[in-house]
Amino acid sequence: MKRVGIIGGMGPLASADLYLKIIQATHANSDQENIPLIIDNFPQIEDRTAFILGSGENPVTKLIESATRLKKADCQAFAMACNTAHYFSQEVVNAVDLPIIHIAEVTVKHILQQHQSARKVAVLATTGTKKARIYDQPLEQVGLISVPLSEDIQMTLMDCIYKGVKAGKIEDYVNIFETLVNQIEADIFIAGCTEIPLFLPLIQSDKTFIDPTLELAKAIVAFSRSL
Amino acid sequence: MKRVGIIGGMGPLASADLYLKIIQATHANSDQENIPLIIDNFPQIEDRTAFILGSGENPVTKLIESATRLKKADCQAFAMACNTAHYFSQEVVNAVDLPIIHIAEVTVKHILQQHQSARKVAVLATTGTKKARIYDQPLEQVGLISVPLSEDIQMTLMDCIYKGVKAGKIEDYVNIFETLVNQIEADIFIAGCTEIPLFLPLIQSDKTFIDPTLELAKAIVAFSRSL
Repeated sequence: MKRVGIIGGMGPLASADLYLKIIQATHANSDQENIPLIIDNFPQIEDRTAFILGSGENPVTKLIESATRLKKADCQAFAMACNTAHYFSQEVVNAVDLPIIHIAEVTVKHILQQHQSARKVAVLATTGTKKARIYDQPLEQVGLISVPLSEDIQMTLMDCIYKGVKAGKIEDYVNIFETLVNQIEADIFIAGCTEIPLFLPLIQSDKTFIDPTLELAKAIVAFSRSL
Repeated sequence: MKRVGIIGGMGPLASADLYLKIIQATHANSDQENIPLIIDNFPQIEDRTAFILGSGENPVTKLIESATRLKKADCQAFAMACNTAHYFSQEVVNAVDLPIIHIAEVTVKHILQQHQSARKVAVLATTGTKKARIYDQPLEQVGLISVPLSEDIQMTLMDCIYKGVKAGKIEDYVNIFETLVNQIEADIFIAGCTEIPLFLPLIQSDKTFIDPTLELAKAIVAFSRSL
């Protein structure tokens, strides 16, 4: 089995969530059937969204530092449990010469394979991820439509993520999130920020949601087991 | 902050549990306040208990391989989210010249500090950990009694660990584990196998449990922040 490296700590809980989803996706009957992984929990990597929106240090130096550690430690590919960090992915790949298992690419591939009638996709993500077109670009490449969200909806979504989940006040934002989701017309919703899946068990909605962390986990296991 | 390495994957769920407990013990207000960690999830390390009980390959070669990766990746100490693996800890420390944050030592220290009236301690652990006296030795050194468990109880405990948690079938073993615990007379119960804490939120018992994974997590955070 191939060893996969994870640039982690962006944030640590999202990396732990990916780790758990990898274990679940492995369906192992013993320790030894699990895949070899290295998680470089490096929370000192600077805030990705802040830099993309024009303030703060460029996190790419520490991203490359982490990928270098992973390569030295015999990883044959790397992944990142942070959607926004994928803005820097090509730069990291070029610097370290290590392939990436790309969260948005595997998610779009999953939609193509499992939701063939879907056309209009709503990307629920931070303004940083949206501005960086992390999902929009691979969606458009395969002919899917990333439905535009109004500025109002995007701002409310940011409140749900930052003032809700990140501030430990998710309960105050459940209804707001539910109303927001039900206002958007799309065939598929991508939970394109690691905070969003936390709302999903709490809302009532008949929309179809995709969890990119789960798709990334499955892709990591498949890569590790590939010849 | 110092970087700590974790020889993980013994098993993967136990390592993920340690990861989550480190995050919780950190009380960070932002990603960047978390500690740098490297988790070398290396489930191919051979079964520790099997070797100690006289069958199977010696896992020490792969343990040293993992500790070497962690040292090369700038870790300043290592820890293992597997009690039984501590049978080999001195050999790894000597081979790699990296200090260990020792799960049983930090646990016994915690009992001495926080449970001063405790005398009789039940160590719930694999047969390998028991035979290797991972907890018995540090307990006895400070005058505490490790209560002997019957062969029946020990065998049932091994089923809970191997056929339950490690096989991903914890639900099938919750009642069996609960009955087992309530049969043992002791002041304190050490959940001395990293799989056992996963049972604790699921059972009803008025016993006092110590979770060595939590004590290890706190010790790792303290080490990372030490000068």
